[in-house]
Amino acid sequence: MDEFTLIRRYFQPLQQRQKEAGEESVSVGIGDDCAVLNIPEGQQLVVSIDTLVEGTHFLADTPPEQLAWRLLGASVSDLAAMGATPSWLTLALTLPHADEAWVSSFSSALSEATKLYSIQLVGGDTTRGPLTLTAQVHGFVKKDAALLRSNAQVGDLICVTGTLGDSRAGLETLLTNVPADSVVEYLQQRFYRPQPRVSTGQLILPYASSCIDISDGLLGDIEHILEQSGVGAQINPAALPLSAEIMHFTDEHTAKEWALIGGEDFELCFTVPPEQWISLQEDLQSHDVQITPVGAICEAKGLQLFTQGEWRVAEANGYNHF
Amino acid sequence: MDEFTLIRRYFQPLQQRQKEAGEESVSVGIGDDCAVLNIPEGQQLVVSIDTLVEGTHFLADTPPEQLAWRLLGASVSDLAAMGATPSWLTLALTLPHADEAWVSSFSSALSEATKLYSIQLVGGDTTRGPLTLTAQVHGFVKKDAALLRSNAQVGDLICVTGTLGDSRAGLETLLTNVPADSVVEYLQQRFYRPQPRVSTGQLILPYASSCIDISDGLLGDIEHILEQSGVGAQINPAALPLSAEIMHFTDEHTAKEWALIGGEDFELCFTVPPEQWISLQEDLQSHDVQITPVGAICEAKGLQLFTQGEWRVAEANGYNHF
Repeated sequence: MDEFTLIRRYFQPLQQRQKEAGEESVSVGIGDDCAVLNIPEGQQLVVSIDTLVEGTHFLADTPPEQLAWRLLGASVSDLAAMGATPSWLTLALTLPHADEAWVSSFSSALSEATKLYSIQLVGGDTTRGPLTLTAQVHGFVKKDAALLRSNAQVGDLICVTGTLGDSRAGLETLLTNVPADSVVEYLQQRFYRPQPRVSTGQLILPYASSCIDISDGLLGDIEHILEQSGVGAQINPAALPLSAEIMHFTDEHTAKEWALIGGEDFELCFTVPPEQWISLQEDLQSHDVQITPVGAICEAKGLQLFTQGEWRVAEANGYNHF
Repeated sequence: MDEFTLIRRYFQPLQQRQKEAGEESVSVGIGDDCAVLNIPEGQQLVVSIDTLVEGTHFLADTPPEQLAWRLLGASVSDLAAMGATPSWLTLALTLPHADEAWVSSFSSALSEATKLYSIQLVGGDTTRGPLTLTAQVHGFVKKDAALLRSNAQVGDLICVTGTLGDSRAGLETLLTNVPADSVVEYLQQRFYRPQPRVSTGQLILPYASSCIDISDGLLGDIEHILEQSGVGAQINPAALPLSAEIMHFTDEHTAKEWALIGGEDFELCFTVPPEQWISLQEDLQSHDVQITPVGAICEAKGLQLFTQGEWRVAEANGYNHF
């Protein structure tokens, strides 16, 4: 199966189906030298590129459908962190060989995922080599409205979405070959299928002063907000939102460590000025994602954790790619 | 050296320097979850993603500066084929280890190349794994003006830019370890440093009916125009533009074969209605890229080559990635 057959059979249909559904932002999609795309008036373009490499980001023989969900979930999460609305996806797929079964499973999961996240595949490149997947996601945000890392102010509350550490726990179940049960399945789903918090990002847009998605671990990621905003933070580990499943799988100490430095949760961490807190709470009434305050922005630079009865300076052991 | 240090030291400066030069299309660049970008009014966004893999697209131990030029040249060539103006670049770099010397050489060549092509680095991802480089290029084109593959008409002239086959000859010199002389150096430069025909793409925009860049070989690539335009083509190999260097390096038969199916030339192949030919010639007076007519679009489907005194149906032996 050559590159063109592969694209025509497995990737072009994704785009055509969505076109029929009334998508008009795409003038030219897959099949020319470039895609030609239309940005709505008054909106800015928001883009992010992310790579998953076999052996670095996922284990060999990971099912292709899990890779599709993980790649897209992690990428769309970057759009969520800006408060953006997802629009288009381009995909660079490096495969060891033209394995039709693999591509078929991958593309059907990708099709589901793109529908769920309302993002349309508009182009790509398929090449031969060690298994590597790169996605670039594109989205829109109203002019000058994007949530940045740089505007956190002293006194702002630090909040996180969902629960933390589950993804790291899910990886642990894979590394240690724990027998599957409902807890293990939940944690593995959290690892494989990050749920990008797109609707939460849009909901907090009018209230939040800064935002980042948690890909390297809460401690590592909040450091970026602190650095770019020129502030410090105090975080109380007792306040960290932990799932019933992680508490069932491991002890509280390990769960908290994974919540702080585990990485790959793809939840949002954002800051809110205290005077916006009440309005945000009102908007959250009918929102189905849990929001938990875990600390506050302070003047003293650096990151402090409340442990053993006092605030202590923390090391940011976020996961680094080298 | 961790990922953040590497980006801060070698990639962020590329962006800042360009910012100082007055580039205002970028509201947020490297350093947040996403880049935030501004599309000029009345323009469409044009994007293409391309991957180079060690062992598939280039030999092991290829100098990093050559890779930077080749990656960017090949990618920007897709923008040229649409008649687009380059704007932004995102880069996904997978490296076996954090080799500072490699990254330093790569980023300084990339800096030169981005300046030459007027394209700004706005984001990226660096990961660990087998050497793989993915670039997404972004550009603009006036609404509904993009050069597509689908509008070639019966009677249109088929033209190509520059000379063909040089890149394949350059690869041959690398594979066979030919001693370096000025001819070999020229051919290797043609392999490593494709010259995307951006200004030519813009010049032919009002005249051309279709366009594609020659990445898989003239025969393979023109097939895409024929298929998407629902027409056939006659190409005369005697008319193929060959460089003095390729004729010095190999015999005429091999040179023509490389010109037809060699690939990676990153020249443009485009079609022009005969009634536009005179006006195009006038515009080409002061243009420094050679344009050569090599055939014509015909009604009979398929591709014919004029060989041994008659038109014969050709096989499109374009290079396929699988």
